Amino acid sequence: METRKIYMDYAATTPIKKEVVEAMLPYLNEEFGNPSSVHSFGRSVKNAITEARATIAKAINAKPEDIFFTGGGSEADNMAIKGIAFAYKDKGNHIITSKIEHHAVLHACEYLEKHHGFEVTYLDVDEYGIVKMEDLKNAIKDTTILITVMYANNEIGSVQPIREIAQIAKEKKVFFHTDAVQALGNIEIDVQELGVDLMAITAHKIYGPKGIGALYMRKGIKLHPLIHGGAQERRKRAGTENVAGIMAFAKAVELATSNIDEHIKKTTQLRDKLINSVMERIPHTILNGHPTKRLSGNANFCFKFIEGEAILLSLDIVGIAGSSGSACTSGSLDPSHVLMAIGLPHEIAHGSLRLSIGDMTREEDIEYVVGHLEKIVERLRGMSPLYDKFMKGEKAHV
Amino acid sequence: METRKIYMDYAATTPIKKEVVEAMLPYLNEEFGNPSSVHSFGRSVKNAITEARATIAKAINAKPEDIFFTGGGSEADNMAIKGIAFAYKDKGNHIITSKIEHHAVLHACEYLEKHHGFEVTYLDVDEYGIVKMEDLKNAIKDTTILITVMYANNEIGSVQPIREIAQIAKEKKVFFHTDAVQALGNIEIDVQELGVDLMAITAHKIYGPKGIGALYMRKGIKLHPLIHGGAQERRKRAGTENVAGIMAFAKAVELATSNIDEHIKKTTQLRDKLINSVMERIPHTILNGHPTKRLSGNANFCFKFIEGEAILLSLDIVGIAGSSGSACTSGSLDPSHVLMAIGLPHEIAHGSLRLSIGDMTREEDIEYVVGHLEKIVERLRGMSPLYDKFMKGEKAHV
Ligand SMILES: Cc1ncc(COP(=O)(O)O)c(C=O)c1O
Ligand SMILES: Cc1ncc(COP(=O)(O)O)c(C=O)c1O
Repeated sequence: METRKIYMDYAATTPIKKEVVEAMLPYLNEEFGNPSSVHSFGRSVKNAITEARATIAKAINAKPEDIFFTGGGSEADNMAIKGIAFAYKDKGNHIITSKIEHHAVLHACEYLEKHHGFEVTYLDVDEYGIVKMEDLKNAIKDTTILITVMYANNEIGSVQPIREIAQIAKEKKVFFHTDAVQALGNIEIDVQELGVDLMAITAHKIYGPKGIGALYMRKGIKLHPLIHGGAQERRKRAGTENVAGIMAFAKAVELATSNIDEHIKKTTQLRDKLINSVMERIPHTILNGHPTKRLSGNANFCFKFIEGEAILLSLDIVGIAGSSGSACTSGSLDPSHVLMAIGLPHEIAHGSLRLSIGDMTREEDIEYVVGHLEKIVERLRGMSPLYDKFMKGEKAHV
Repeated sequence: METRKIYMDYAATTPIKKEVVEAMLPYLNEEFGNPSSVHSFGRSVKNAITEARATIAKAINAKPEDIFFTGGGSEADNMAIKGIAFAYKDKGNHIITSKIEHHAVLHACEYLEKHHGFEVTYLDVDEYGIVKMEDLKNAIKDTTILITVMYANNEIGSVQPIREIAQIAKEKKVFFHTDAVQALGNIEIDVQELGVDLMAITAHKIYGPKGIGALYMRKGIKLHPLIHGGAQERRKRAGTENVAGIMAFAKAVELATSNIDEHIKKTTQLRDKLINSVMERIPHTILNGHPTKRLSGNANFCFKFIEGEAILLSLDIVGIAGSSGSACTSGSLDPSHVLMAIGLPHEIAHGSLRLSIGDMTREEDIEYVVGHLEKIVERLRGMSPLYDKFMKGEKAHV
């Protein structure tokens, strides 16, 4: 079998689209002024940022003045959570989140708990990774100031009932932040209709560059900035703007949201083909996450009796890029907190593999990947003492 | 006189060098992997970041593991100040800074004072904008945990005695952070020899892009991150790295530090020509900042009887870009806090103009600018009631 390079890790980051790079280039060349400067070099850049902000706002049905650029999704999450916590400390010290959040949310919450006197409830999820509305309602108390639940999970792709959560939060007069980093460009988002108060997004998951993101924050909410200083971003996030990044982000959002139906249709088809082939051809495999309430580009499996890391390395050798656990914490040997939260035992969670697809994925890639995966799993199981033991047990039963 | 475009606002931001843009491009195209991913797409990017970190470390004589990438200088300042404050709260709640700091430092300090129980001493400066060592020594108390004094001022270019401050801090076992955003590339920096504990730098003042900076932090210092989440930047600053920005920053640092002597020589010559011509040809003008202990590219004047904004707009019309007050706070009508701190009266501070020069400035630009400036000041004074009154007074004295 020939060796190709097949990227199936779109959930970690995406290639950058040509049009996006082209949108940046003028701002890395002649348009270099500081947007805060009053002279012509600065003014034209300021105008470009204003337009970019409007483009992004429009794509999620927000007002331009409710978009605050940040250095990425993690910063937007931290800005929302710590910003609200510190600003509304007098009102209460209780925050509700879920056990399957991205570490940007979980660790921000843990930090507030450990060092700043906040109390955090980490909601359980069901076997598909979905937060239960009853649990959420029961968790809200007089001191609750913020609910933060992600829109779609980065590992298993599960999509939360954001509209319902927003409704509950609104009734109880609690702010609701959602981490929509994985949702943007994969689910149509209308912040007004959803009713969220704050929302984090990032460019590098939607064919834009790394290091640029934004926080959407509805008018009328106070927030203590993470970064104090100049008057940029309406005094909510100081620092000279990442101008080229902002231009890229706007172009990426425009591209990702304007043909979203087609994107969803295509990636859903490919994903289902991938999931069906894997489940059919590779025995003792679990599909993690919800069968239908999942991101169109996400497939996440556990292959029993073997290690995810070993699968990953074997795939890498034949040029296929996947992920086990989230990229942001790889290097750690703990099993994924998300897979633990949906109730998988340690030894099974260790055998997980995420394959995520996107705009550049082709049908033949799926066949190529499944073909290799089947062989790899077979080979690894052939060397697995656990599998050996299991097979002997099976035979004993016959 | 013909109209050109002459940029004299290098202290606000610089053009990006071609080599710097070229260093980014691969990371906006084929090298798109997430550095946290274990597959080949990720590994090559991770290696590139490792090299970039080493390049920057070497340029300031730091260890690579002491460099933490941020979204810019403001974030680095906030990370240092809030990070140290929260981490060493148990040891003390007193911070010392100066009245002429950038707002990223001042507003971070004010925030800690207003909302988190810290006490801040804002040191006065002398008429040249230099902190007095006696004042600093006297300000240190048992509860002092941090001194933060900038290396070189962004408005008037004054350079502080950083070595001495570091020595004093060390003796008193207090951490010392310096904002070296304006110093990098304009003054040779050796963090070991200087003895600073933390230092903020940014790319867009040294011919790199906006939105990427770094904090240098000596080993052994604890710090509460601003941004929690993934394990990036040794768990001190979460979020997928601004990879292209990091590559650009490394190239910019390399270029700015490798031929720094030549750069200083050239910009000092041009600056002195600028200062001398202005002082000779335009009466009732004050040079702000120290005559020699100043950044090689910085000139800052007050033209009595007129408004800085008016000068700026008139310069803009003939294609010359300058600044009054710092770009980061422009839009505000308050006179510069720096000019207030060096003791200028309100009405004089309002007449300030910063002209900052850099690598692309040519000798003929200086002549062009001074020629226009002379005419503009004359014209504005001709319309100034203050000037009129002054002149009548002068005549009365004759
Ligand atoms: C002295 C000083 N500190 C900090 C900053 C902030 O850096 P950045 O714009 O990269 O956030 C600037 C410039 O804007 C500056 O001149
Ligand atoms: C759900 C989720 N939230 C937050 C982040 C962090 O975004 P960024 O890497 O831009 O900081 C990621 C991805 O890394 C993510 O998948």
